[in-house]
Amino acid sequence: MSYNIAQLDKQDVLAPKRALFNLPEEVIYLDGNSLGALPKASVERIQQVVNQQWGNDLISSWNKHNWIDLPLQTGEKIAPLLGAGPDQVVVCDSISVNLYKLLITALTMQSGRAKVVSEQDNFPTDLYMVQGVQTLLGETRCQLISVASEDIENALTDDVAVLMLTHINFRTGRIHDMQRLTRLAHQKGIIVIWDLAHSAGAVPLALDECNVDFAVGCGYKYLNGGPGAPAFLYAAKRHHNKISQPLNGWMGHAKPFEFSPRYDAAPGIKQFLTGTPSIIAMAALDAALDVFDSVSMAQIRQKSSALTELFLHLKRQHPALDDLVLCSPTDSELRGSQLSFSHPAAYAICQALIDHNVVPDFRAPDIVRFGFTPLYLSFADVAKAIAVLHNIMQQRLYTHNKYRTKAAVT
Amino acid sequence: MSYNIAQLDKQDVLAPKRALFNLPEEVIYLDGNSLGALPKASVERIQQVVNQQWGNDLISSWNKHNWIDLPLQTGEKIAPLLGAGPDQVVVCDSISVNLYKLLITALTMQSGRAKVVSEQDNFPTDLYMVQGVQTLLGETRCQLISVASEDIENALTDDVAVLMLTHINFRTGRIHDMQRLTRLAHQKGIIVIWDLAHSAGAVPLALDECNVDFAVGCGYKYLNGGPGAPAFLYAAKRHHNKISQPLNGWMGHAKPFEFSPRYDAAPGIKQFLTGTPSIIAMAALDAALDVFDSVSMAQIRQKSSALTELFLHLKRQHPALDDLVLCSPTDSELRGSQLSFSHPAAYAICQALIDHNVVPDFRAPDIVRFGFTPLYLSFADVAKAIAVLHNIMQQRLYTHNKYRTKAAVT
Repeated sequence: MSYNIAQLDKQDVLAPKRALFNLPEEVIYLDGNSLGALPKASVERIQQVVNQQWGNDLISSWNKHNWIDLPLQTGEKIAPLLGAGPDQVVVCDSISVNLYKLLITALTMQSGRAKVVSEQDNFPTDLYMVQGVQTLLGETRCQLISVASEDIENALTDDVAVLMLTHINFRTGRIHDMQRLTRLAHQKGIIVIWDLAHSAGAVPLALDECNVDFAVGCGYKYLNGGPGAPAFLYAAKRHHNKISQPLNGWMGHAKPFEFSPRYDAAPGIKQFLTGTPSIIAMAALDAALDVFDSVSMAQIRQKSSALTELFLHLKRQHPALDDLVLCSPTDSELRGSQLSFSHPAAYAICQALIDHNVVPDFRAPDIVRFGFTPLYLSFADVAKAIAVLHNIMQQRLYTHNKYRTKAAVT
Repeated sequence: MSYNIAQLDKQDVLAPKRALFNLPEEVIYLDGNSLGALPKASVERIQQVVNQQWGNDLISSWNKHNWIDLPLQTGEKIAPLLGAGPDQVVVCDSISVNLYKLLITALTMQSGRAKVVSEQDNFPTDLYMVQGVQTLLGETRCQLISVASEDIENALTDDVAVLMLTHINFRTGRIHDMQRLTRLAHQKGIIVIWDLAHSAGAVPLALDECNVDFAVGCGYKYLNGGPGAPAFLYAAKRHHNKISQPLNGWMGHAKPFEFSPRYDAAPGIKQFLTGTPSIIAMAALDAALDVFDSVSMAQIRQKSSALTELFLHLKRQHPALDDLVLCSPTDSELRGSQLSFSHPAAYAICQALIDHNVVPDFRAPDIVRFGFTPLYLSFADVAKAIAVLHNIMQQRLYTHNKYRTKAAVT
């Protein structure tokens, strides 16, 4: 199979989306799965929120610019990307905090069951949050069972309370079968919480169709909401009337401005709100979501697969790249919008790439991770990235001392 | 006593600070205790973080611009305003979420005690958070005892685990005696959590000297960090090695980038971090704090008292204002940087004032609340505000229909 790269870019229906982002010309950014690029719409919106709304309209902006509804409004913009109908998604807090709310919500629904099944290789914060709940409530109410990926299905026994999984693995990009695992879990009466950090905005999702109970996800990766953007939380409508989450903040109150001393949860998805959210941060995310206008997740997925396939194809043509061992699934259907390779010098290779204007990231202990974001990446970018990588590996540029010193954030 | 207003403004050492804020010329903003005004430094910093750091330097900014240390760095800037030594203040999440962490931390330290004493008239979210913990853990581990203000001292018995109070009451502005109440609580083995939402940046504080255990506070009121700015959390150093908080997110891990599956809390104040924070929101607050450079909290307090005294003096000269009944303490030593008045038409009076470019806020059921922020308010502003208020009350302008319809946020 041979590729005509210029032709691929010419036929790319998503190519015009690149102009919606501010990205440095010289950089090939393969780390949108860690921090999404800056949408021009966010720049404009932040300026508006800061200067006009905060600076000029001050406190009246809560009504005048509808700050108060922003968590719901932004949630409704995310919902279609998740395959979620209205009134089920809200934006607030971080993934960690939202997971905590959902873990306790789910455990409370499952009286007599305490086990929370997850994957050893899950993103650590997810496991940490369960450990925190376990320490607080004791093993009789919460017990983390973390198993290897291949043992998940066997672990779904009828004494399990919750199955909590990250849909796309942060290291390998492997995708779990959401429909199958949710169904198997439900057959045993298990409630399912999906972490969509590496899925939302990257692959098509069908939360409603898969009958998912709860989910959380990230605003700053494929949704391009800015560094540390607020997270989102999905709760299926069928559960709204029977749940209570523990972080009873005033923003989740049915009537916050009555300042009643007794907590009465708001109806619906709003009951998951806690404290006052950062309006600047949320507005940046809200504006960023407009780049998804007029494209479907199927189109994004198709280009994402084509980009990773091209990368692998070009890599195979260079024997100097053989030492980079693919640890993502070879079948593009089974992986998200990333490719990960292990190499003993992974950290130094990442640093050398960054020094040559190709930006991947390193994941301990030995992984170079490339993210492919179809909204701002071209096929020519992929070809250039391979050329740079080839140069670094063939010339062993990564052995240079300056690429070995680890920074605080890797 | 008579006032020479021009003279007061001329002698005001804080007057030059007004130029550090972007405030609409025509507005007299008496609501900085709800949403602080926009510091020019924040405008510039946000632009830098968005365009240069996020847009251009992308993921490398976590190291290059030290995003990773921002929660600690901003905490250290707040510490002197609290009378707190280094390594005890961190910026993260919301007041509500931080209170949750501290409530459970404190309850866990107090085995055998479950009572959390607070004030009926506390800001509701504080009470709600205790209610959430009570529902989760049961009354044997957490039991909210909310009492009238005058009954607090009697409620401090040796079966109480935690005293949780807001230092300055959001409705009346009444100040609790932090030193005395902390001491009385400690005599009974009670841990004390102070909510400093209306105190930080408004009145001098001495957390270390008062031997306070824990505290939380707000970034968006007197600290001018922007709408929904992240909150701060104080934990006395003497407790750092014996505590554990339940929201075990990866940012609070000793080595977050080792991605270890087991949670090991970071040493010191960093253990209170949970998820990834919004860098834009936090940078806005960090920059806003620079307006406190080269002024002392004593200077701010002195001007604040002078402003509220002037307001009350001028009010007394207008019999048409007698129906506005002061519900803040008459002794300026006993109240924070606000004045509250009850009136049956409080909501409409607020709306009429706003319509005439004087911005207070309404607090249910019947309070007009004026905040006095010495960094951007002049004595002339106070005199003008009284003139406008007098006009509205004397002419009964507030009875106009258009001022009666309540907005979503009051």
